[in-house]
Amino acid sequence: MSYDYLLTLCIILGSTKVFSILSGRLHLPQVVGSLLAGLLLGPAVLGILAPSEFLTMLAELGVIVIMFNAGMGTSIQELKESGKAGFIVAMCGVLVPLALGTGLMYCFDWGDGAVGKLTLLQSLFLGTVLTATSVSITVETLREIGKLSTKVGNVILAAALIDDVLGLVCLTIVSALAGGSVSIPVVLCKIVLFFVFAVVMAVLAHKFYLWYDRRVADRNLHRFPVSAFALCLFMAWAAEVLFGVADIIGAFAAGLIISSTPKDDYIKSKINPLSYMLLTPVFFANIGLKITMPQMDLMLVAFTVLLVLTAILSKLIGCGLGAKLCGFTTRQGIQTGMGMACRGEVALIVAEKGAAMGIMPEAVFGPIIIMVVCCSVFTPVLLKNAFRGESPYEGLEESSLLDDYEMARRMDMVAAQMMRHEKKLRQKKPGAQG
Amino acid sequence: MSYDYLLTLCIILGSTKVFSILSGRLHLPQVVGSLLAGLLLGPAVLGILAPSEFLTMLAELGVIVIMFNAGMGTSIQELKESGKAGFIVAMCGVLVPLALGTGLMYCFDWGDGAVGKLTLLQSLFLGTVLTATSVSITVETLREIGKLSTKVGNVILAAALIDDVLGLVCLTIVSALAGGSVSIPVVLCKIVLFFVFAVVMAVLAHKFYLWYDRRVADRNLHRFPVSAFALCLFMAWAAEVLFGVADIIGAFAAGLIISSTPKDDYIKSKINPLSYMLLTPVFFANIGLKITMPQMDLMLVAFTVLLVLTAILSKLIGCGLGAKLCGFTTRQGIQTGMGMACRGEVALIVAEKGAAMGIMPEAVFGPIIIMVVCCSVFTPVLLKNAFRGESPYEGLEESSLLDDYEMARRMDMVAAQMMRHEKKLRQKKPGAQG
Repeated sequence: MSYDYLLTLCIILGSTKVFSILSGRLHLPQVVGSLLAGLLLGPAVLGILAPSEFLTMLAELGVIVIMFNAGMGTSIQELKESGKAGFIVAMCGVLVPLALGTGLMYCFDWGDGAVGKLTLLQSLFLGTVLTATSVSITVETLREIGKLSTKVGNVILAAALIDDVLGLVCLTIVSALAGGSVSIPVVLCKIVLFFVFAVVMAVLAHKFYLWYDRRVADRNLHRFPVSAFALCLFMAWAAEVLFGVADIIGAFAAGLIISSTPKDDYIKSKINPLSYMLLTPVFFANIGLKITMPQMDLMLVAFTVLLVLTAILSKLIGCGLGAKLCGFTTRQGIQTGMGMACRGEVALIVAEKGAAMGIMPEAVFGPIIIMVVCCSVFTPVLLKNAFRGESPYEGLEESSLLDDYEMARRMDMVAAQMMRHEKKLRQKKPGAQG
Repeated sequence: MSYDYLLTLCIILGSTKVFSILSGRLHLPQVVGSLLAGLLLGPAVLGILAPSEFLTMLAELGVIVIMFNAGMGTSIQELKESGKAGFIVAMCGVLVPLALGTGLMYCFDWGDGAVGKLTLLQSLFLGTVLTATSVSITVETLREIGKLSTKVGNVILAAALIDDVLGLVCLTIVSALAGGSVSIPVVLCKIVLFFVFAVVMAVLAHKFYLWYDRRVADRNLHRFPVSAFALCLFMAWAAEVLFGVADIIGAFAAGLIISSTPKDDYIKSKINPLSYMLLTPVFFANIGLKITMPQMDLMLVAFTVLLVLTAILSKLIGCGLGAKLCGFTTRQGIQTGMGMACRGEVALIVAEKGAAMGIMPEAVFGPIIIMVVCCSVFTPVLLKNAFRGESPYEGLEESSLLDDYEMARRMDMVAAQMMRHEKKLRQKKPGAQG
């Protein structure tokens, strides 16, 4: 038995952490740093690490945990409360990128290259990749300029929540379509059955956790996160194998289900380390490892530039229009659109899914990664620009959504402080006895 | 790509949890339940799951995390404070089982069976398997009968800590001997070099974490557990590949190093979920999966019975003598010996290691598992018996070691209660606004 995988994991953990710290210094999202670490270590540059089956399976598990986390972060209660404006902004912000992305892909003339003319389904898939917003970098930026607790900030937080769900509905439909069955009724039937399955699981899980929470109170707490993770794995498997929609949708649905059970915060706090200690770094590094420098012909460069423009402009137009429809000023519409333009891990996950299902050409993967990186680099700059000249107190507004983004971090800091305190007490004790 | 591994992991998590809850009801350690789950699901009984390379690598990672945890639970400070009595009990409790186990293995006449006459090195390995005490079930039993805070309880806690370290010193020597190099100087050189390496890493890590803790205080906390886990993986790899001692020793050493850094409690609290949410269940289930029902010939049955007797009696004699040497009464000596007789996951890990290194016959693995299960079943009964007739207030004594066993659980409960409270506050807020 070879022990090299231990060193491989050590290098992945170390390098993704160092690079994400560095990218944080440059005000870039950690995703960019982690991707870069994989790219540098992989065959494309240094060639220290190579993709392996073990890494691929860990990365796939990482994807499932990321989507499970995303689902847990989307409480149904908050979805209901997020209001009409959030819904309209999200809806327009999904439909416009979907349409423009599909259009770009379908109309782009690859010439005599390896890619060839794409089918409508393949084009639809690229549209789906463009739908998912990543809001974390926007939140950071708005916090930095003191504009997070504003009308625009609140509508962005609400829309980003709904955006995720709508994007996954698109993916459900497209992946069911890609399942090989040509007849639309079969596809619809699969989706409806999956939906029924998810609702049944939700009811069962809700009842079970309510009963169990009363029964065990705060003893034997481990059972909650372990059973929740088992539910997530089961629903991911069932979504993929039994219903022919993507596994990540099952994982997201499991997260949604867990988010309305009594111990959801505790479960989140235990899934989190599983994610950031092992699975998420492996996922990002693995993407970087798989990149080989393609022959950057003129066509691919042109496509990449068009893709980046489409990605940013489509969200700007879609969300901006949505905001205007809800009575926002043009300036606020532009601010909202820029705030929603960032893409992140979900876009990468959907793209990977498409590659795994064989409906997305490998050559398009590189441009998508570049698109994600460019969006993260450009949108904070553009967003700050869109707020330039506003007084610091303009449009301040309270929000309950905001608390959630703060909560996890605060809990963790409190726990660390408690441990520090507890430790001091223990260290004093032997001295007091002696 | 096949998605069956998702279902496999789901079944492993679910079944090990259910069986360990059931075994808890029967006052057996969770290890027994988890092993049983793997055994039932595996080829030996139901044949639902089969060992795979992915599971084996996850299980190996689980072993490393278990040993890392064990190392973190062994603070050098506490080792120093654990006193002469703990050290003598542990020393005798390691030497006697080592000698008797080696003797049993070397002298046992397998007849014409598949095993054949064992070499001294192979026999030494079985002796090493018998050295490691698992104290968790003893702690539970003593707590149940109210005898944990006694002189005997305290010496057991102290001796169990030292016991782990001494057992791993044995394993270091034996595994270095088994590395193929026949010359004793080379083996000694390897061990000394590894020791020097560990000390250098300890000094570097200590300085780094002290500096870093002052620098970042309680922000960006994730970096502590991630870097600690990377250190663990690196030291496991280095121990195995560079120094030819087992990877688990590197992981344990890394844990020891981390245990004396400022954020050790926080790091523990994040390594824990990684362990119990995924890696440890896979490790136990994987052991169960690998068991095939052997032709239970008379020889193997006889060997198993002798092994169980040797395991329990050798600890009883060794630790009992050690306790007598420290001025304990005969009754207290028997209590101490019975309290140290339980074996657990470390015995299984060492045995697996031996099988992987090819110096332990596969046929012996079954008897070792049965030995671990029998020890866990018999010792609580025998231990309670050894305390029968004592007044409930006899020999009560305070201990600072005890706090550690309670601490992690208490912290977790407090965190869960805080989350519950925080949630109520948040749920009230929208109502107050509306």
